[in-house]
Amino acid sequence: MTHVLDDFRGLDETDEVRPFRERFALPEGVIYLDGNSLGALPKATPARVRQVVEQEWGCDLIRSWNRHGWIDMQQRVGKKIGRLIGAVPGETLVADSTSVNLFKMLSAALQLRPDRRVILSEASNFPTDLYIAEGLADLLGRSHTLRLETPEAVEQAIGDDVAVVMLTQVNYRTGRLWDMAAMTALAHAAGAVMLWDLAHSAGAMPIDLSGAGVDLAVGCGYKFLNGGPGAPAFLYVAGRHRHATSPLAGWFGHATPFSFDQAYRPASDITRFAAGTPPVISLAALEVGVDLMLEAPMPALRQKSLLLGRLFAELVEQELAGQGFRIVSPRADAQRGSQVCLSHAKAWPITQALIERGVIGDFRAPDILRFGFAPLYNKYTDVWHAVAILKDVMTQRSWNASRHYANAVVT
Amino acid sequence: MTHVLDDFRGLDETDEVRPFRERFALPEGVIYLDGNSLGALPKATPARVRQVVEQEWGCDLIRSWNRHGWIDMQQRVGKKIGRLIGAVPGETLVADSTSVNLFKMLSAALQLRPDRRVILSEASNFPTDLYIAEGLADLLGRSHTLRLETPEAVEQAIGDDVAVVMLTQVNYRTGRLWDMAAMTALAHAAGAVMLWDLAHSAGAMPIDLSGAGVDLAVGCGYKFLNGGPGAPAFLYVAGRHRHATSPLAGWFGHATPFSFDQAYRPASDITRFAAGTPPVISLAALEVGVDLMLEAPMPALRQKSLLLGRLFAELVEQELAGQGFRIVSPRADAQRGSQVCLSHAKAWPITQALIERGVIGDFRAPDILRFGFAPLYNKYTDVWHAVAILKDVMTQRSWNASRHYANAVVT
Repeated sequence: MTHVLDDFRGLDETDEVRPFRERFALPEGVIYLDGNSLGALPKATPARVRQVVEQEWGCDLIRSWNRHGWIDMQQRVGKKIGRLIGAVPGETLVADSTSVNLFKMLSAALQLRPDRRVILSEASNFPTDLYIAEGLADLLGRSHTLRLETPEAVEQAIGDDVAVVMLTQVNYRTGRLWDMAAMTALAHAAGAVMLWDLAHSAGAMPIDLSGAGVDLAVGCGYKFLNGGPGAPAFLYVAGRHRHATSPLAGWFGHATPFSFDQAYRPASDITRFAAGTPPVISLAALEVGVDLMLEAPMPALRQKSLLLGRLFAELVEQELAGQGFRIVSPRADAQRGSQVCLSHAKAWPITQALIERGVIGDFRAPDILRFGFAPLYNKYTDVWHAVAILKDVMTQRSWNASRHYANAVVT
Repeated sequence: MTHVLDDFRGLDETDEVRPFRERFALPEGVIYLDGNSLGALPKATPARVRQVVEQEWGCDLIRSWNRHGWIDMQQRVGKKIGRLIGAVPGETLVADSTSVNLFKMLSAALQLRPDRRVILSEASNFPTDLYIAEGLADLLGRSHTLRLETPEAVEQAIGDDVAVVMLTQVNYRTGRLWDMAAMTALAHAAGAVMLWDLAHSAGAMPIDLSGAGVDLAVGCGYKFLNGGPGAPAFLYVAGRHRHATSPLAGWFGHATPFSFDQAYRPASDITRFAAGTPPVISLAALEVGVDLMLEAPMPALRQKSLLLGRLFAELVEQELAGQGFRIVSPRADAQRGSQVCLSHAKAWPITQALIERGVIGDFRAPDILRFGFAPLYNKYTDVWHAVAILKDVMTQRSWNASRHYANAVVT
């Protein structure tokens, strides 16, 4: 079956989540397929940020910690994110960055399995996950090691020396989706703790951490949660792991920070994984994105996301045959996140030419063009036009192979 | 000599830094003596925050990492803060929270002194500093210990087992100011690394880290730098410590994060102490505060700050004799930061009664009323009126001793 533009127009007309697009301030003339790198701006965010800056900070000053609930923001927004990922209230907290939270979670995992010495992950995991694990191992004097496998070999590698299996649910480069429940069960069967990085999945699909029996998780606020550039991240600790503590024992994790005790006494709840004073303005922006996401029907978002991806891949095959592209993302819905990636020898200059034409995806070294689908605001016709413009770029050879990717942008 | 209101009016009239007050959006009817807890809002901040939210995030989206220099913000703002504290460009970075940066700096210090096992601090240091040190010691399996002394005993306690001396330049509770150069020299004489927490001094007084030969430092963005609630913090590593690395080896500290290498290779410059993606909106707000501070003549600010403190203490003695107050801050200028603290058995309800009358200081358990002086925007007459209102509160006994401090606000 050949796809035609009218099919995509028809899908937009009957799209039940289409009204959410109007809640975002998307620029004219841009097809934004990079919401998995930096989510778009909700229209409600500027007013909320103005309020926190001008009214709460400017007028109420220090009193806002109580008067406007700054003191509970990490728990409040954390609880809201928990609803998106199948957590029980009190198991999630907004804090720090994904990297810093990974450090806390890995350290907690090693605490939970004191007799085991291996952190197991996949070699193609997002680099910061691997760096943080190596950094922790270095700090611990190499008493622990990071073992890296191909995705296919992870299962066999969960030996009885593995303290924690650390995986990212959706691979940042290929979009490959792990079966969370199955992998968690395998980790548990081998006596290991399971730690998931939800950076590319939270907000993009239904997640059931409780149902899957997950132990620990981290995730990102600035991708599908639309929390703004560098938005604070989140963490999850299953309620049963009450004895796990944070190695970053800052005062915001103390049971009673304002008694200014000399000795650290961790809060009995998830608050113990907080560290320093959180960035309130950025946190307020994140809350708007999360609130908006909570209004949307997640199963419908997932269905739309999968259809956007499937249609994109089919259009690439229909329109770009013989142009040197290879679809590197899994085609099966059950194995794909909310993105489709293409490899091409000239991926970098093609990405740049697309951006100049208003189609924003991103490049991942060495040869990947990555297109993310944010079902909350992407239209089906976005997919059609993106491929049409890509075809035009290739046909006209309107990309300059001499460009180098020294100026590559942030994931 | 008896102080009278006209003296304070006269000082305001001839105050050379008085014009800076007009650069802040201070609320009507408030005397704000809590800038050492949360600095006031610069009038330029809302427009800059609007710009970063609506234009940079909303319109330019992911492209802003390059187009608007988000990618270099931590270094750029760090360099500006460096000018306030006597750092050489490339020795300072904005990142994470003060607590998280302390963890990095303590870990780096232990790396620099691998044969020593003691972290030395003072028992009355700000709690998060002590908690972070204990948390690191716990993580390291108690191979290292935190030794706590009274301020007077610190000097004698710097034995040859001490890896790092960790002190806060201005004590959060008493306002006591360490002699940075002298203490650093003592630490070095004993072969220890010197780590300063500048939370209550950066932006309040001239600081010369290079001149004092300091090894490592951290500091806070939301106090005297007026960076907004929970603003990102900063860190300093002396250029000579090129081999010190961060235990929080996140991708923003990698030499080339966008090559997405599997192995961590720390940046050769201060960037290696970055961890995850920084909160851009909060960072943009911080930059405005720092830029404003850089316009001001720091020696004049320090002189004004000291005079504000001295006059406050003298007025307390003049107006509040017999009311049960004791001045706990050092009276000698060379030993005092930018605050004056009083102890009183009813410190908590008195603080609350003052706040209700528009005089905002804060309470520090168990019995301290803390008044901070931000010379950039506090007037001399603020000091007069604050003491006059405090006298009125005491005379009328318009405080309710039954209040409990469960709702205490954040430092």
